[in-house]
Amino acid sequence: MKIAEPTVGRLVQYHRLLERLYMEGQKVVSSQEIGESLAFKASQVRKDLSYFGEIGKRGVGYHVEKLYKHINEILSSPRKWKLGLIGVGHLGSALLGYGALRNDKVEISALFDNDKSKVGKVFFGVECHHIDDAAKIICRDRIEVVILAVPSSAAQSCVDSIVSSGCVKGILNFSPISIVTPADVLVTSVDISVELEKLLFYLKEEEKKK
Amino acid sequence: MKIAEPTVGRLVQYHRLLERLYMEGQKVVSSQEIGESLAFKASQVRKDLSYFGEIGKRGVGYHVEKLYKHINEILSSPRKWKLGLIGVGHLGSALLGYGALRNDKVEISALFDNDKSKVGKVFFGVECHHIDDAAKIICRDRIEVVILAVPSSAAQSCVDSIVSSGCVKGILNFSPISIVTPADVLVTSVDISVELEKLLFYLKEEEKKK
Repeated sequence: MKIAEPTVGRLVQYHRLLERLYMEGQKVVSSQEIGESLAFKASQVRKDLSYFGEIGKRGVGYHVEKLYKHINEILSSPRKWKLGLIGVGHLGSALLGYGALRNDKVEISALFDNDKSKVGKVFFGVECHHIDDAAKIICRDRIEVVILAVPSSAAQSCVDSIVSSGCVKGILNFSPISIVTPADVLVTSVDISVELEKLLFYLKEEEKKK
Repeated sequence: MKIAEPTVGRLVQYHRLLERLYMEGQKVVSSQEIGESLAFKASQVRKDLSYFGEIGKRGVGYHVEKLYKHINEILSSPRKWKLGLIGVGHLGSALLGYGALRNDKVEISALFDNDKSKVGKVFFGVECHHIDDAAKIICRDRIEVVILAVPSSAAQSCVDSIVSSGCVKGILNFSPISIVTPADVLVTSVDISVELEKLLFYLKEEEKKK
C-alpha cells in the first residue's frame, strides 16, 4: 500500500498534535477536536485514521497513546539520516538555524557553497566545503539526503553533479525551479514563490465573488 | 469553477516555464517537453491544459505565446498586494532577502517583531515595528497579506491579534504549526518540517522494497 503524498503530510501533522496531547496527559481525542486543531475536516481525519482500525471508536474517539505510537511507528526512521546542505546564503543559513532540521531523525553533517570566503568556515557547528567537492564528500561521509538552497540558475547543475556520485537518495529542493533527477533519487520541493502565487490567486478569486 | 490547489500550483510552474520559453523565442511546445522540464507526467500536463481549449493541437503542441498569455491572465493580480512580515529572525530575514518575495505582484511594506532591539530599524529597506502595533499598522497601511515567520509557540496568538483587525485577507504561514483563522482569511502553509518528514518517509518505504 503506497500512501499518497498529501496523506503523509497530514500524518506528520497528526503525529505532531498527538505527541503534544500525549505529553499533556490527554487520554482520548475526537476526530472533530483533531480537525479543529489542524484546520482539517473531521470527515478527512476519520478517513485518514480509518487505516488504523480499532484505535478509534464511534462516539468515544481515538485512544491518544495508541494512535500516537502507531503513527510514530509509521513515521519512524531506520536510522539518523545524514544531510548535506548546498548553498549557505540567506535561505541556507536560515534553514541551518531552523529547529525543523535539528531533530533526532536527521543530522546536517556538511555544507557546500561556491563562495570561497565561506569554504573552510564553520556555520552552526558544521563545516563548509567547496561545491566542487560535494560528490566526493557526500559519498565519503555517507550523506544520503541533500538540501538544495541555491539560486535557480545553479540548481540543476548542482543536482547533476551530486546525483552522478550515486550516493544521494533524496533531495529537499528549495530552489524555485523544478529539478530533474534519475528515478531512484526522490525529490520533495518547497517552492515558496509557488505557495505565495497560490495564495494570491485564491485572494483574487475571493474578490471576484464579491 | 474552482481550480484545485495542486492544479494552481502546477499552473504557476507552467507559467514560469512558458515565460522562459517565450523570452527565448520558442514558438511551440509539446506536453511531453513541458512534462520533462517540470517533472510532471505528459498526461497530467494535457489534462491541466485541456481547460484552455484550442491552444494545444494533437501532434502539433501548444502555441507558447498564446498559452503563456492565457495563464498569465489567470494568475494576474488586480493590484500590487501589500505584504507585512511578522518575525524578523533567521527565516524572516532570509525571506526578506529572497527573490521570490520581491516581484511585481507584491511589496513587503512593514515588518513586525517582539524583539525591541529590532523595532525602529530598517531591514532590506523596510521598517520594523513592534508586534503589538501590527493590527493598527496593517489597517492603516492597507496591508492585506501577512507572512508569518514566528516560532510555533507564538504563531496562533500573532494570528489572533492581526486577524482581529479585520484588514488581513490572507496569511502565508511558515510556522511549523496549523493556524486557525476565520473562514474569510485564507491561509497557505509552507511547513518545512512536514516536507522533510515526507521525504524521509518515502526514503524509508523505498528501502523496504529492496
